[in-house]
Formats: sequence, structure tokens, C-alpha cells
Amino acid sequence: MTYCLGILLKDGLVLAADSRTNAGVDQIALVSKLNIFDSQKDRLICLMSAGNLATTQSVAALLDQALGTGEPNDMYAADTMFDIARIVGDTLRAEIAREAKYVEPFGSPDGSFIVAGQIEGGQHRLFQIYSAGNFIEATRDTPFLQIGETKYGKPILDRIINQDVDLDSACKCAILSMDATIRSNLSVAPPIHLLRYKSGNLSTYNHRRIADDDAYFLSIRKAYAQGLRRLFNRLPNPDWGK
Amino acid sequence: MTYCLGILLKDGLVLAADSRTNAGVDQIALVSKLNIFDSQKDRLICLMSAGNLATTQSVAALLDQALGTGEPNDMYAADTMFDIARIVGDTLRAEIAREAKYVEPFGSPDGSFIVAGQIEGGQHRLFQIYSAGNFIEATRDTPFLQIGETKYGKPILDRIINQDVDLDSACKCAILSMDATIRSNLSVAPPIHLLRYKSGNLSTYNHRRIADDDAYFLSIRKAYAQGLRRLFNRLPNPDWGK
Repeated sequence: MTYCLGILLKDGLVLAADSRTNAGVDQIALVSKLNIFDSQKDRLICLMSAGNLATTQSVAALLDQALGTGEPNDMYAADTMFDIARIVGDTLRAEIAREAKYVEPFGSPDGSFIVAGQIEGGQHRLFQIYSAGNFIEATRDTPFLQIGETKYGKPILDRIINQDVDLDSACKCAILSMDATIRSNLSVAPPIHLLRYKSGNLSTYNHRRIADDDAYFLSIRKAYAQGLRRLFNRLPNPDWGK
Repeated sequence: MTYCLGILLKDGLVLAADSRTNAGVDQIALVSKLNIFDSQKDRLICLMSAGNLATTQSVAALLDQALGTGEPNDMYAADTMFDIARIVGDTLRAEIAREAKYVEPFGSPDGSFIVAGQIEGGQHRLFQIYSAGNFIEATRDTPFLQIGETKYGKPILDRIINQDVDLDSACKCAILSMDATIRSNLSVAPPIHLLRYKSGNLSTYNHRRIADDDAYFLSIRKAYAQGLRRLFNRLPNPDWGK
């Protein structure tokens, strides 16, 4: 399984992805689910993926091969982030159409993506691409999108995130959302890839790979766990009336 | 959807269930998912259910009709909680076998149960019955079982619950687990039914129906939300190194 999270803020974007992939009971591997396309000065494009690893890796490789070719699926030739979301969706659709009949006897070929980034002259934007190739976009009222094992990490996001949250607080919240998921589900695991993008910076951004022995990760995990326990203990018990 | 939670403690049992049921887009109703069988002095038997409401209500009704009859599915004639779990599983299995071919064209007939209680001379016990009729039992190392919309409410349980937690703290934690689920998922809603059972008390227990305007529920929701936000704000931001 996988957990990937994208947050759209007024100030920019925060992305987080875990690194656990498992294909059957005996294959557990670490693969980064975050692909960053940053070699052009006029744009930053990030993909995160969940689902069938063969499908999503093929899509990322096909998109990588097309860069700079001027072909219809060249993300460096696209004018808008919407057009890039459409390229990712179309590539995913074509890949699944090509593979489905061979893969389905063994399992689902489905995959999904989060696409985030900015092209000079446009807004920073965030999309979620479904396995069918269609997609939705994050908005002011729906400022975060998740794929993979999404539910464990949603409550903390629902409590904290809105579009006006600053980038560093959103990074902190993304880590806590990952931590909740990692604690509750064995199939999601560090290293966590965390990306912080300030709108307008285009090819410049912060990226951090957070391993399970990362000092900041350990300290925030511990402080949050202890703080939550103290908070819990201070809350009143229910009163049974009689 | 539904969310039901059972917690097995050294001191007793805590059960919580929401009341939202929806069958299709235009039917949303409130139904308690907690059935309490308490008319015998030597035992307390509680059922909570999730899944197809027609299936689970029929199972509960069949079990209710059989009480005191001495038939094989008479829960008042059973010697152990294990035997009661088996009765519930067998009844569920028979009900699904009876209904499946008529119901499946419209949706899944599946359902699941949490069975909890104590019979004089035995321990208090907690079981989860799958739709196939087989079941698992809570243990010292797995002290809580959930059915329905389980994931949003699991992180807080993972942090707080172990077998040595006292009954009132477990009630508090059950309410916070429900609250997290209600905040993140529209298909789970109050009133919450909360049951607190101290081992050895048999037919005596505390039961509370917590509506969304319940003063305790509102106060604990608010105090937890505010405390969590304060805790979040005090945690350090990630350091990007350069």
C-alpha cells in the first residue's frame, strides 16, 4: 500500500509520500512514490502515485521519455497545469488499456496519481487523477487530496488544514498525518518524502527524505504522542448520571 | 455506513455505536446498531452490527425470537460467550444464504457483528463476526475490535487503548474515536450509543445515548479540538537545513 498527500495553500504546495510498496505477501520493497520534474526553469511538475507499481512506474517512465520531444504527451511543452493533468490521465488510461487483459488474472492493474506544480504565468495547482484517467482539482474548500491508504491520516488534516495555513505548519501536519497512518497500518512506512514549494519559485523548492531515524521525525512523533496523552488525561470522563 | 467499536479491558467492556444508516442516496435514517439482551440475571449479551441493515436486523430479530425457547440458537441457553458468538455467526450465515440470490442484484447482503458480554462463571469476552459467519476474539494484545467505517477512528485507539486502561478512560477514548470518524465521514453520525460494563456485574451496566447536542459530547469535542490545535502549534516546524 501507499499513502500520498498533496496540500494546496495560498502560499504554495506541500507534498508527502511514503515509500512502502508490496506486491503479494513476500515482496515488500521501498520505492519513492514522488517524482519531481524540475529541469526547466519555467515550471515545477510533481507526480505522486498509488496502486499497481508496474502501471504507475510505466506511466512515469513514459512521461519522462516524452520530455522535450514536443510530442502530445510532453509535459515540458504543455501550457497549463490542467493540460499536464490531462496528459497524465491520458497516459494512465492508455497504459491500463494496454496491460489490463494480461494483468487482471493476477490482480488489479489500477493506479492513481496526484499531480502538482506550477508553470510560469499560471497558478500553482493540485490534481488527483483517477484510474479511469479523469481527474479532480483541489480548491479553496477542498485544499488537500489523498491517494492510497488515506483514512487514518485524514482526521488530523480535517482539524488543521485550510488554505490559509502557512507552508511550514502544513509540512508539520503532513508529517503527523503520515505518522498516524504508519502507526495504524503496517503497509505504509518511512522514508517519507516531503516537498515544500513556495508559489512563484518555479524550479526551486525544498525536498527532504525523512527516514525512521530522522531526529526531527522522532522528536515530533514523541512530542505529539506525549502531548496527546496529556491532553487526553485532562479531558473529563463521561458522567453516568446516577 | 456505520461505525461500531468494542473494547476489552481487564476491568470490563466498553461498546460504542453510531446511528446512521443509509440505503441508497435518498434513504438516510437513524437506527441504533446496539442491541442489548439483559433480561436474564446470569448474563449480559450485546450485539452491534454493520453492513446490510435488512440482514443484520433480521439476524437480531431471529435471535430475539429464539430467546428462552431452548432451541439451538437460544442465546439464553448457551453455556459460554464462545457458544453465543457461534450462534450469531450461524444465524448470520443462514440469513445470508436465504437472502443472497434475491438481494445481490441490488447490492451486497453482507453484514458483520461485534458480540460482547459475560455469562456467570465465565470471563467477559468480545468477538467480531465476519459476514462468512466465522469470527475472531479480542485478546490482551488486540484489545479492541471495530466494524463498519473503522479507519478514521483507529489512530486515537492505537495511541491510548491497552487492556489496563480503566473503564471511564476507555469510554472517553471511544467517544473521541467516534468524533474523529464523524468529523471525517458524513455517513457516520450521532446519536452515539455508549455502554460501560464492569466485569462481574452481569445484567447491570451503564448505557448512554449521546445526541449531537449532548453537553458532555460538545464539551469534550471542543476541549479536544482546542487542545490538539494548541499542541500542534507548540510542535517545532521542520528544519530545511539550508
